[in-house]
Amino acid sequence: MDLKLLKLVTIVAEAVISDKIVREIKELGATGYTITAAEGQGSRGVRASEWEGKNMRIETLVGEAVSEAILQMLATHYFPNYAVVAYVEDVRVVRGDKYV
Amino acid sequence: MDLKLLKLVTIVAEAVISDKIVREIKELGATGYTITAAEGQGSRGVRASEWEGKNMRIETLVGEAVSEAILQMLATHYFPNYAVVAYVEDVRVVRGDKYV
Amino acid sequence: MDLKLLKLVTIVAEAVISDKIVREIKELGATGYTITAAEGQGSRGVRASEWEGKNMRIETLVGEAVSEAILQMLATHYFPNYAVVAYVEDVRVVRGDKYV
Repeated sequence: MDLKLLKLVTIVAEAVISDKIVREIKELGATGYTITAAEGQGSRGVRASEWEGKNMRIETLVGEAVSEAILQMLATHYFPNYAVVAYVEDVRVVRGDKYV
Repeated sequence: MDLKLLKLVTIVAEAVISDKIVREIKELGATGYTITAAEGQGSRGVRASEWEGKNMRIETLVGEAVSEAILQMLATHYFPNYAVVAYVEDVRVVRGDKYV
Repeated sequence: MDLKLLKLVTIVAEAVISDKIVREIKELGATGYTITAAEGQGSRGVRASEWEGKNMRIETLVGEAVSEAILQMLATHYFPNYAVVAYVEDVRVVRGDKYV
């Protein structure tokens, strides 16, 4: 089975900023993404009322360089001002060549 | 803590074919699955209008042999004709013996 | 990029017990969580009618000690009586220090 090692980047963010994040990850080289609606409570000092409620969970499969660029973009532009969660993990992908 | 190393197989597919995929993964030995509604845009050459919109995200915890069989089935029967994403990762599962 | 290795704990449980599980994982030290609605069929001997339908998928990013405590709590209090799925994986998290 031809599987390619890629990075799965997961981002959980408030719905109001998720469209902008999707545009930015595509500009950075992500070729596809999946979005699911989510609720959650964050781990920052923010009041629950600011953060609980409608979030979007964005997932994208990318190569390592693009994953680094996405995380850096989030750390620089979103983490200072928004309740965003972002993490990366290794996955093996069917027909993975089309994602990089 | 008794944890068993298993494969988590994630499949994102158009809603119209997700029921068929679920039947096939059960026939191949998956004993359980989780489905969540998702939206997304794929990484194939397809037009956005063919692919954006309602997808299903199917997840199943299986042993290595069953994960290989599922990915092979998808690569053979679905990837040529449908916008499907499929990837596998290692997870450690509580009471994992019941899944294999 | 400053990434912290953390445990991503995923729990899929019937909706009726998900609020209680969320309270317990917070008491055990989880500082945030994400919930998505899911459907599924379990791998236990239960009849489909007992288990199919509305589930909640709870995810939380925690350090190793908290992940062990959560899994132990689930194994002791929930697995004997409910159709619960729980697994853990390694992820690398942006600004991960705030979760532990």
